[in-house]
Formats: sequence, structure tokens, C-alpha cells
Amino acid sequence: MPSIRHLAAALALLGASAAHAAGTPPTTAEVIERSTARDWRTPDPDNVLYLDLPAGRVVIELAPQFAPAHAANIRQLAKQDYWDGLAILRSQDNYVVQWGDPNAGQDTARTLGDAAKTLPAEFDSADGTLAFTALPEADSYAPQAGWVDGFPAGRDAKTGRTWLAHCYGAVGAGRDMAADSSNGTELYVVIGHAPRHLDRNITVVGRVLQGMELLSVLPRGTGALGFYETAAERVPIARIRLASQLPQSERVALEVFRTDTAAFEQLVEARRNRREDWFIDPVGRIELCNVPIPVRAARGPAASK
Amino acid sequence: MPSIRHLAAALALLGASAAHAAGTPPTTAEVIERSTARDWRTPDPDNVLYLDLPAGRVVIELAPQFAPAHAANIRQLAKQDYWDGLAILRSQDNYVVQWGDPNAGQDTARTLGDAAKTLPAEFDSADGTLAFTALPEADSYAPQAGWVDGFPAGRDAKTGRTWLAHCYGAVGAGRDMAADSSNGTELYVVIGHAPRHLDRNITVVGRVLQGMELLSVLPRGTGALGFYETAAERVPIARIRLASQLPQSERVALEVFRTDTAAFEQLVEARRNRREDWFIDPVGRIELCNVPIPVRAARGPAASK
Repeated sequence: MPSIRHLAAALALLGASAAHAAGTPPTTAEVIERSTARDWRTPDPDNVLYLDLPAGRVVIELAPQFAPAHAANIRQLAKQDYWDGLAILRSQDNYVVQWGDPNAGQDTARTLGDAAKTLPAEFDSADGTLAFTALPEADSYAPQAGWVDGFPAGRDAKTGRTWLAHCYGAVGAGRDMAADSSNGTELYVVIGHAPRHLDRNITVVGRVLQGMELLSVLPRGTGALGFYETAAERVPIARIRLASQLPQSERVALEVFRTDTAAFEQLVEARRNRREDWFIDPVGRIELCNVPIPVRAARGPAASK
Repeated sequence: MPSIRHLAAALALLGASAAHAAGTPPTTAEVIERSTARDWRTPDPDNVLYLDLPAGRVVIELAPQFAPAHAANIRQLAKQDYWDGLAILRSQDNYVVQWGDPNAGQDTARTLGDAAKTLPAEFDSADGTLAFTALPEADSYAPQAGWVDGFPAGRDAKTGRTWLAHCYGAVGAGRDMAADSSNGTELYVVIGHAPRHLDRNITVVGRVLQGMELLSVLPRGTGALGFYETAAERVPIARIRLASQLPQSERVALEVFRTDTAAFEQLVEARRNRREDWFIDPVGRIELCNVPIPVRAARGPAASK
């Protein structure tokens, strides 16, 4: 929170931070600077969804290891150009933005084609082979918090179940009253403080890797639940496509920081004990949704170090 | 997260929720519906700050019980019209917006007049008389979490100290490297997931009561730390005034839900165990920053029940 009075000085300090003694645990910036190509992964283009808006592109990574049926239906919908020309319908402050078909439920609704109309609830997973990187700290909402394949998650050792956590940027599938009433056509993104009470109440399908700032700034709707009250307020969706549907030249090549490495453990520690000069109290604690998972433009093998 | 397909049904259900049996613990909506005038308080107009932007008014409540020197300096600055014509300078996604003097630190900086140039750090308070409503749940960042006079707070029984928590809408005083380098001229507001690592590292001066949606949607700055890179991107501040400086007709009459009442305890319980029909897992847990403190337009004594 540097004052602008000394922003230049603060930025200089940030730049100089890499000069810390080799024996000192690194800051977040240093962990990333020192990372190697093996600390990053390239998401599967079949799991990467591009939401193209007038303001630009939002990149989403799907999590089929948690929501296989939803991921498959979303892929099918993308291949059918289902969302092209539909819109963002809702923006509720400190909560979510949500898109879909404004005519859903009416005769004029867009057809679902070969996509399923309803899907089983995929609120959590019983898959014991999911590689879970545990956070030692207690969590407010889960018996155990941590990460699976780059996604913040909760776990209950007693039941053997694991689930995706509603941190900032989480993407979920809107549903009605019935647990199995979602189909992935209406997706929402968390744009505020983590609504972790939604965990295990709805299917999380992934998270936003890039472009959150295009969603978080959308004017809040004045209707109930933040719905836009007029068609003119809605934000049109140009198209939603899988990365794998587009030629290489139209894709956004991104790498995501792995969450199962020693480097990630250092990153969590750097966020837990803040060594940046600005901090007076180094904190000594960390919470699941306060660990950002770094994303960067992909580097070719030659550029990686 | 109701689907729009059945939004009308969902809203009908919300409306019908007050019909729950009298013996059932109330939902959040029911707690508010059933509240009496004694469950609400009217903030002291000397503690209410109006930030007037082109898009409308943001209402802030100051917390002099935690930051008396900062509150006094902010009052002085408001009385000097210090901020009139200055601007919001920074909007960092999932973090803060911040305003102040773009020329701060330069010869062209606006004069501070009778306001102090620096203030003592007011990161926490040793005042043992603060009425603390404790949340039973463990907190990720504080030995004890709860509320003081409507503000989310942390407490450490060992040290006897209490501090304001950086939940969504918290307002703090930007500082440089030195703990005592803030003066209240540069204020920031949390617009994302609670950055609780800032707790006890900076002086929190209050929280936004109304108008968050005017701040949270501001385009994110593309400079370091979300600073706007050009003057044209900045959001001009028409004026900042204390409510007490304005005639009654120009004030926004608000009431804030008290946090030291049985009704508030019910509200927390309603957020902990979700009884709304949509919830399949009632959750059973709650976290400090996920308890919204209701604010409403003031009702005259005749209108209150």
C-alpha cells in the first residue's frame, strides 16, 4: 500500500528485492524470478475456454478432474457456438458475474443441441488419487485446505472427499433448486470476497486464468441478485471457444505455476511471512484464497531458464 | 446462485421465506424483517464522510475509536476542501482503489494547511473498554475475530489489543515505508478478497457503508500496483465532506445494523447455517468477512417498528 509520494522509491525497492542474501527465504517476486520451466505447466487446450467480450478475452481453465460431466457439456456447448451472441446477465457486487441465455426457460430459448439439459451434481469428488498439496493452516470452511492441479480446494479426510473452493476467480455452473439442475450453460465467476459457503453447494467447473479485470469492473445490475434490468445493460458475448478449437495463432499461450512443487511451497511461505520491506508485521499466517497462483505468457523452451 | 431459468420462482421463494415456522431459526432476510428500531444505530455525522464522484456518492463511516488521530486529520482535511478536484489514482484488481493528490511529493502538491503531515501509526488499539462481539469460529489471521461498533475486528487476549480487519469495503490510510508516514490524505478501499495480511500493518480508518459498487467497477489501472498511467484515466473527486458539514437536506440518512445485539447474533447464525431453500449443504461455518453488516435508509421514529 505504498503512498504515491514515494511510489518510485517503492518500485525501486521491489526491483532491488532480488538482491536479498541467498540464505534468506525469498519473497513472492523472488520465488517467481528463480523458478525454472519445471515449475510451470501448460494447461491442456481442451480445458481452456476463451470468453470473448467486446472489452477483450477472459481465459478460463476447466477442472474436469472435479467436474467431468460439466466440462464435457461445456466443451460440447462451445463446439455448438452455443454462447455466441448471448450475454452477461448479472453482476452482483462482492459476489458474482453470470452469463447465459436471457431467454432461457422460454420458447425463444436457444437450443441445447447435443448438449445435456441437466447434469449430475459434481459438488465434490471421491477420487482418492487427486494430488492434494495441503496448507498447514486451519481453514474457516474446510477440514483441510490446499490445492489440486493449481485449483484451490478443500478436503475432508474422514469422508475422503475433495472439492474446489470458491476463491476469487472461481467459475461455477449456476443451478436452480435441484442439485442436478445445472448444465453449464449459465456460468458465474466470483468477483468479490470468497463466498466459501457456496462450496459443496454447487458445481465449480474451473477458474479464470487471465482477464478477471474485464469481469470485475462490469457495472452492477440493479435488479434482484444483480441481474441487469434491461437488455441494453447486458454485456454481449462475442463467442466462447475452447483453445483447442482455434488455430495456434488465435490462442493465448499461458503457463500456470504448478502447486505441487518446492517452488510453490516457497511461494506459500513468502505469502505467509512477508519479507517485503513495506511490511512491519510479517503476518505469519496465510489463508487459502490469499495465495495467488501465478500465470504468465508462455515462454518457448529456448526462453525458459 | 439461482439460474435465470427460474429466477422468478427463486424470488418468490425468497419472499415466502418469512412464512417459516416461528420456532425455526430465521434466515438473514427474516432477521432483518423482524428487527426493531433498537437493532439499528445512526452513525454520528461527525464520523460520516461523503466521497462525491461523477457517478454518485460513496458513504464512509470513520472509526475514531481505533484511529483517533487519523479521524481527526481526515475531518480537518474535509473541512479544508482538501480533496476537491483531486482524484482516484489507483485501481488494482482484487485489491484496492486509492485516492489522493497526483502531485503529492512535488512542488505542485496541494497544501495540507492545518492538517498534520504525518500521524502516529494507529494499527491497533490497547483500549480494553471496546465492546467486542466475539465470533466463536477460529479465524485465519487473528487469535479472535469479531466486531466492535459495527466494524469487523481482530483481537488478541494475550496482548489486550484490538484492530480493524481488512474485509471488503474497509477504508485505510496509505503509508510509505515508515509506520508513521500516513496522514489520511491518501485513502484506499478494499475491493476484493479480504487482504487480511494488511491487518496491523497499516491504519484502518473506517468502512464503506454505501456506494461500494461505484468504486469496485472502476477500470483497473495498467501501471504498477494498479496506478493509472495517464491523468485522463483518473477518476475526479468532486468533493469529500463530513455529513456534519452539510445541511440535513444534503445528507444521506442511513442506519447501520448493530453488532452487539441478540438480533445480530441471529444474523450471524443465519449466515452460518443457511436455511434458504437453495442451500443443500447448510454450511455450518462462518468467517468474519462473510457476515455483511446491513445498512438501510433511515426510518423516522414513526416508521420504525
